[in-house]
This record gives sequence, C-alpha cells and structure tokens, in this order.
Amino acid sequence: MQQAEIGLIGLGVMGSNLALNIAEKGNRIAVFNRTPSRTDEFLGEAGGLAGQIIGCHTIEEFVAAIRPPRPIIIMIKAGEAVDQQMAALLPHLAKNDIMIDAGNANFRDTVARFERLAGTDVTFIGMGVSGGEEGARHGPSIMVGGTEESWKRVEPVLTSIAAKFNDEPCVAWLGTDGAGHFVKTIHNGIEYADMQMIAEVYGILRDGLNMSATEIGEIFGQWNKGRLNSYLIEITEKVLKATDPETGRPMVDVIVDAAGQKGTGKWSAIEAQNLAVAASGIEAAVSGRVLSSLREERIAAEKLFGLPALAEAPKDKAAFIADLENALLAAKIAAYAQGFAVMSSASEEFNWSLPMPTIAKIWRAGCIIRSQFLDEITSAFTRDPDVANLVVTPAFAAMVKETDAALRRVVAHAALSGLPVPALSSALSYFDTYRRGRGTANLIQAQRDFFGAHGFDRLDGKDVHHGPWAGQF
Amino acid sequence: MQQAEIGLIGLGVMGSNLALNIAEKGNRIAVFNRTPSRTDEFLGEAGGLAGQIIGCHTIEEFVAAIRPPRPIIIMIKAGEAVDQQMAALLPHLAKNDIMIDAGNANFRDTVARFERLAGTDVTFIGMGVSGGEEGARHGPSIMVGGTEESWKRVEPVLTSIAAKFNDEPCVAWLGTDGAGHFVKTIHNGIEYADMQMIAEVYGILRDGLNMSATEIGEIFGQWNKGRLNSYLIEITEKVLKATDPETGRPMVDVIVDAAGQKGTGKWSAIEAQNLAVAASGIEAAVSGRVLSSLREERIAAEKLFGLPALAEAPKDKAAFIADLENALLAAKIAAYAQGFAVMSSASEEFNWSLPMPTIAKIWRAGCIIRSQFLDEITSAFTRDPDVANLVVTPAFAAMVKETDAALRRVVAHAALSGLPVPALSSALSYFDTYRRGRGTANLIQAQRDFFGAHGFDRLDGKDVHHGPWAGQF
Repeated sequence: MQQAEIGLIGLGVMGSNLALNIAEKGNRIAVFNRTPSRTDEFLGEAGGLAGQIIGCHTIEEFVAAIRPPRPIIIMIKAGEAVDQQMAALLPHLAKNDIMIDAGNANFRDTVARFERLAGTDVTFIGMGVSGGEEGARHGPSIMVGGTEESWKRVEPVLTSIAAKFNDEPCVAWLGTDGAGHFVKTIHNGIEYADMQMIAEVYGILRDGLNMSATEIGEIFGQWNKGRLNSYLIEITEKVLKATDPETGRPMVDVIVDAAGQKGTGKWSAIEAQNLAVAASGIEAAVSGRVLSSLREERIAAEKLFGLPALAEAPKDKAAFIADLENALLAAKIAAYAQGFAVMSSASEEFNWSLPMPTIAKIWRAGCIIRSQFLDEITSAFTRDPDVANLVVTPAFAAMVKETDAALRRVVAHAALSGLPVPALSSALSYFDTYRRGRGTANLIQAQRDFFGAHGFDRLDGKDVHHGPWAGQF
Repeated sequence: MQQAEIGLIGLGVMGSNLALNIAEKGNRIAVFNRTPSRTDEFLGEAGGLAGQIIGCHTIEEFVAAIRPPRPIIIMIKAGEAVDQQMAALLPHLAKNDIMIDAGNANFRDTVARFERLAGTDVTFIGMGVSGGEEGARHGPSIMVGGTEESWKRVEPVLTSIAAKFNDEPCVAWLGTDGAGHFVKTIHNGIEYADMQMIAEVYGILRDGLNMSATEIGEIFGQWNKGRLNSYLIEITEKVLKATDPETGRPMVDVIVDAAGQKGTGKWSAIEAQNLAVAASGIEAAVSGRVLSSLREERIAAEKLFGLPALAEAPKDKAAFIADLENALLAAKIAAYAQGFAVMSSASEEFNWSLPMPTIAKIWRAGCIIRSQFLDEITSAFTRDPDVANLVVTPAFAAMVKETDAALRRVVAHAALSGLPVPALSSALSYFDTYRRGRGTANLIQAQRDFFGAHGFDRLDGKDVHHGPWAGQF
C-alpha cells in the first residue's frame, strides 16, 4: 500500500476537519485516535475521501503507514495531554521524523518541547492554525515555527490545504521553535480586541440609540461593504439578524452577556507586558471579558448605582452612525499596530526575524480576523518592513488622519452617556500619547526622583540628574 | 558583648537607612557588606547610633554577633544576587535562623526561595518595604510573608521601626511564602496608576489650560488640603514648584518626559492577567510609561500628525478645575478597587487569607501611596471584609456617585482635545462596565459560537447552547 504523506493524531472537531481537508487536496493521510471506534466512525463520515485516508488502530500501524521522514500532526487539547502524547509517540519514531503540535499551545511550552526534542532524532514544529472548524475543513491560515528543514518537508502538504488569498497560500514558516504559536497567540489577541470594539459599538447602537438587533445587523451589513469589510463584521451582521427558534426573538437578545476565554488573549497581554510593548486594546478586551463574567456583581451594581442618564442624542443620527464606522476603523488600526509592535519586539527578543509583511499576508484569508484591511497592512509592511509603527506608514497615517476625529466624538459621547468603551478609548489614548512629542512623564520622573532618588535626564543634556529636593527630607 | 537582635546584609542606600532606623529604635544590629570598607564608612556615618551597631567584616563574625534564632535581613539588588547571597550564608546558619529578603522581589521567586529553604533548618521571610530612602530611615510600611513562627521572632523589632498611623504600626504578617512580596508588588502597581492619573491631570492643566508648572503646583497644593490629601499629591506640589538651579526654570520643564520602570508595575499587570482580574488602571499606567520611553518615535509622530485642535475651553475654569479634582478622586477609587480585587483573588489562588483591612491599614503611613484615602479604605473593609468590590461599599459608592459625572466631563473634554487620558478613561470604562447589568458580551458569545462552536448560555436557562447558524458554513 502507498504510504501516507502525513499523519494526524486526534479526531476531534478540528482534527477531523483538518484530515478531510488534507485528503481532499490529494494527499494520503494516516489517522489515529485514542479511542479506536472514533477512527472507524470518522472513516465512515469521510465518504469519497476515505480512499485517501489510512485509519489506524495502533500507534505501530500508524507510524508504519507514513512515509519517512514522517510529519505527524498532533491535534488534541492543549496542555499536558500534548506532552503525554509526545512521550507515547517518541519511541516509535525514527531519525528526522517531525512531531507537529497544531493546537493552541502557549509558545513557551512550544519552545520547551522544541528544546526537549532537540536532544533526540526527532524534530518539533509548533503550528498555529486559525479559522475554526470551517477553516480547518476548507482552508485555514497556518503559522509555522520550527527548523527550516522540517518546514521544507511539510511545505507542500500545508500549502495545498491552506486558505488562498488571490491564489497566494495563507501559510508560512515564521521562524524557529515558538515563532508559529507566538504569532497565533497575537493573532488571537488582536481578534479579542477586534471583537471587543465591535461589541462596544453594538452597545452604543443598542443602549445609546435604542436600536433593535436586526437594525444593528443592517448597519454592520452596510459597513461590511466598506472599509471595515471583514469576516468578523460579516458574521456580526449574521448573528444580529438571526432569530432564536425557541422564542422567535433575536438570538443575541436571549444570550447571556458573559464571555468565555481560553487563554490566548491573556497570553497576548502577558507577553506584551514581558516585552514592554503597549497593547492596551488587547488588555481592554481581556478586561472586558473578565468583567462580563461577573454578571451577578454587575446586576447588583446597577441596582446600587443605576445607569447614568444618556447625553443629549446626536442631532444627525446618520452622521453619528458614520462616526461609529470611522471610529471602529481608527480603533482597529490602533489594535493592529499594537499587535504588530508586540511581534516586532518578540522577534528581536527571541531571535526569530518574524517577517511582518508575510504575517499580514497569511492572515488575509482563512483566519478569524481575515479582511481587506490585512491586505492594506500587507502593502504597508511590504513597502516599509522596518517601520517603527503601522500608524506612521503613509496609508495608515492617512486613514488615522481621516478617522480620528470621529473616534474622539464617539468616545466623548459614550463617556458622557455612561456607555462603556474601554477598547475604543484605549485606542484614542494610544494615538494621543503616541503623537505627542512632549508628554507628561517628566512629572513622573520628578516624583520618582523625589521619593526614590531614581534620577532623570534633562532636555538640555546637562549632567545634573537629581532635583533640588534631593536630601530634602 | 551583648548579641544583636537582628542582622543586615547590604549597606546600600536602603540597607544603610534601615540599619540606622533599627539602631535608633533601641535594637542592637549586626551589619555586613560585601565590600568591608563600606561597613567601616557606614559606622562612621552612624554617629551616636554606632554604639548599637556591630560592624562585621566576615560572615562568621556577623553570624556569631546575632542572637539565635537569627533574623538576617538581606537588602541587596533583587534577582540572582539574592540567591547567591543566600547560598553563601546558608552553611553558617543554624536551626530556626531566618533569612529575610527585604528587596523588591518577584513573589514567584520568593515562593521558590521559601520552598527551597523548607528542606533545611533555616526558614525564609519575603518582606516588602515601601517608603523609599525616607521610609527606610524614619519608618517604612512593611509587608511580611513567611511562617507565623518566624514572624513572631521579628515582630518586636519590625514593629519598632515601622511607620505609625495614629500610633498603629504599619507592619503586618500577611501570610506564608510570597504573600508579603505579592502585596508589595500590588502596592507598587497602584502607585503606578496613581502617578499616571496625576500626570494626566497635570497634562490637561498644562496643555489644555496652558498653565505654568508653578500655577499647577498651587492647584495640587489646594487639593492636598482636601479629599485627595496624600503623599503623592504633596510631592507633586513640591516638584512642580521647584526651580532648576541650573536654568532658573521650573524643574519639571527641563526633565525629559520618558519614565523608567523597574518591574513591579509590569508584574502587577501580569499577575492580574494570570488571576483574570480587571486591572486596567495599572495596565494603562504601565503602557503610559512604555510609550513615554519611545520619545524619538513620539516626536516624529507629532511632526507627521500634528496635535489635534483643543476643544472649546471650559466656560467656567474654576468649575473645570473642581471637575479635575473629582475626576482624580473617582479614578483613584477605580485603581484601588482593582488593586484590592487582584489581592483578593490572589489570596484564594495561593491560600494566603490576605487580610484586606490590615493591608489598607499598614499602607496609611510610611509607604509611597500613604493617604487619608487609605484610612477610609481601612474603615470600608473593616466594616465589610468580604465585599465583592471596594466600589460597592457604602462610603465609596457614595463617593463614586458624587464624582463620576466630573470624570465623564473630564474624559469627554480630553478626548475632544487630543489630551491623552488612558488611566482616567480606563477608570470610567471600568465603572460603566461594572455598573451595567446587561453588557454586550452576548454578542461576543454569539460570534464565538458562530466561528468556533463554543456554545453559550441563555437568559431563559433553556438547554439550547448553539445559535441557528450552527453548521451553516
């Protein structure tokens, strides 16, 4: 029997769909699942693709079915289960075989796994896969970290299954060890920020303008035809227009307002802190989810405080809705600028040489934050790969100039109306801090010198680093 | 010769001052420094206190000079140097001797050190000391983590040297292992937020109202007589009124606006993330320092974008300045509420039983954030130690109700004027999210279910956890 190009362990939702995608693109694939009955069930579901799939009930059988050097995708729950699976697999593998963790791993775990396998014959790839179930089945965005040699072995099959944007595959080798999972983490952090900003605008329309879910869906539908065109805006329209079959009411109106999270948003915020890069949009989004989960506390607080009265309604409603569209675009620029700044700093810190234009490129299709906007980021970084910040590239600087006044008006209106806009206002503060040549940290430096003798630098370069208060106590 | 009550290693600025404080309070102390000449120099500086101080040139001499069980304060640069010093000291110690790390350690290092010594005869205390040079010399706030038994040994001497608030000493045992350093870290995180909020208000007065440093100092001086009364406001007045001896200009006007940081702000933000507690004020403050350090980028960005035009000046300047005072108070409540929420969550996570009223109590004097305000927090937590959030205690709820409208007006004005207020606006968003019973995370849950089949809960409790879009792709 002809050997498989690749193997896959873990036939859950993501693993099954990825395996079908691999088979459909003409690659032979061997599959293995801890519970063998699931393997049989999966082969039954595979229909016409079953001929490309070798279902295996034992690890020995599975390993034998793959052409060496064997790339083996592990697609199981992130965490300890991955280490256990790796340990179980290792004794069966041979020189240059490749274990590929395709789950949502913390990149620090990936680095540790890569280093652990460095002492063996086997090599390791940490691979971020975005796009959910649909992406896995029909074309995800794939972020690869590992040695260049192991990448070469898997490049053809990954290229065949990745999403395409204008015929360009959304997969790339981004660097060694944890590079792929790091970039996937920041992708998710940006996704958190994007979703939070959309939710804030939804809140202004719902609670500020008293619009129905369907009406708001209509507005997002309009926006999806403009510069905000993206998968997230597209599905926002869809979910807002969906009706609950149980009650006949708009679906969103019966859903509890407490958001879950699985770690990547938090990791993004933590790594930004570790790297000393401002990522306030991601932080605001994580905080937003945290506070959403305190539902009982929030209900009690509303009883205690009541809601603030709304500010005077905008005189021109259509103009205000246009402001919201521009505000969302401006805030989105800040969030993406921050995400790319984190990656740029990580690239130096971890010696990855992360290719910014390539990252933007492979996010244009397949993943959750796919959009036209990312094509514009691709162009901006291609033109100027070493730019200090996305915000100052000519195309984005022009967009900021065009939209920041709208963001100001929206934040001011929301502030006066008691409508929470943590991510939108963090974006505005980011711009306003970043564009001000003379900030206010001189006062902070003076205070620090006063109480801790930390010293300061002077604008005139003179060599006097303490204030006249030195020793004053 | 009579043995010393306590020993101290490291005669830098903090160590020297702490040793003098200990001696002055009638305790005999043995001191040791890596460079012996510094020990001699220090004894020379000690003047009339030298009789209480035993200067030692060798570790053997030093250990022999302390009454067993020996408490030994290590006051050197945080990090690896502490581990090296501990390793060098250990062979000389006997059963129940106590190593006390009084530096600004990351509490995770403290936990590791505590556990490492648990296998020996010696025990470990991680002790946060706040108050800078002045506090060390005349009375710091001291946060102790370790075993209760080791605390009992050092309680008398620490009580004698701690700051006093209404005759109550600002020192307490807060729990085992890392509890003291954790609380010190959050103290510093709150300090970051407090300083950032002050700097933002300074910015509005300077760049929005075009006031001079001296005029602004006058305003802070007025505020220091009111509800904002605190050490940080007091020194803000002082530094703003100080004149640069080199140029005759206000001191703050010649200081570079790029703030340094030494890690505790970042650690606070990271631990808040790890604990899934919203700490947006601390995060905004850390981001503010990070962006301040990108001075060249900021200057270039101002050239590119220019500064936004100021919004129409407030009609009643005095009323606007009163708004700023109230806004600062409101934002301060949010930052402290967040800091205490982080500690409350950490207390559960690490089994510390952190006593919230006690923490507020020992911060009332000695430390950098000391204030009247902390006496009010002490009362609020004493009355209701298990309250979900400081914001909903009667006293603070009343303050929020009285001041939040001012915070709204200030944030709106700053937003329209391009004056950056990341911390003030994060505080407003925190209140507005926390007081809203029906948030917008229902939309986020719908999106997550759409693209990732994550499921959601329903307000009506029905057992249908996916939207009608399930399988729609």
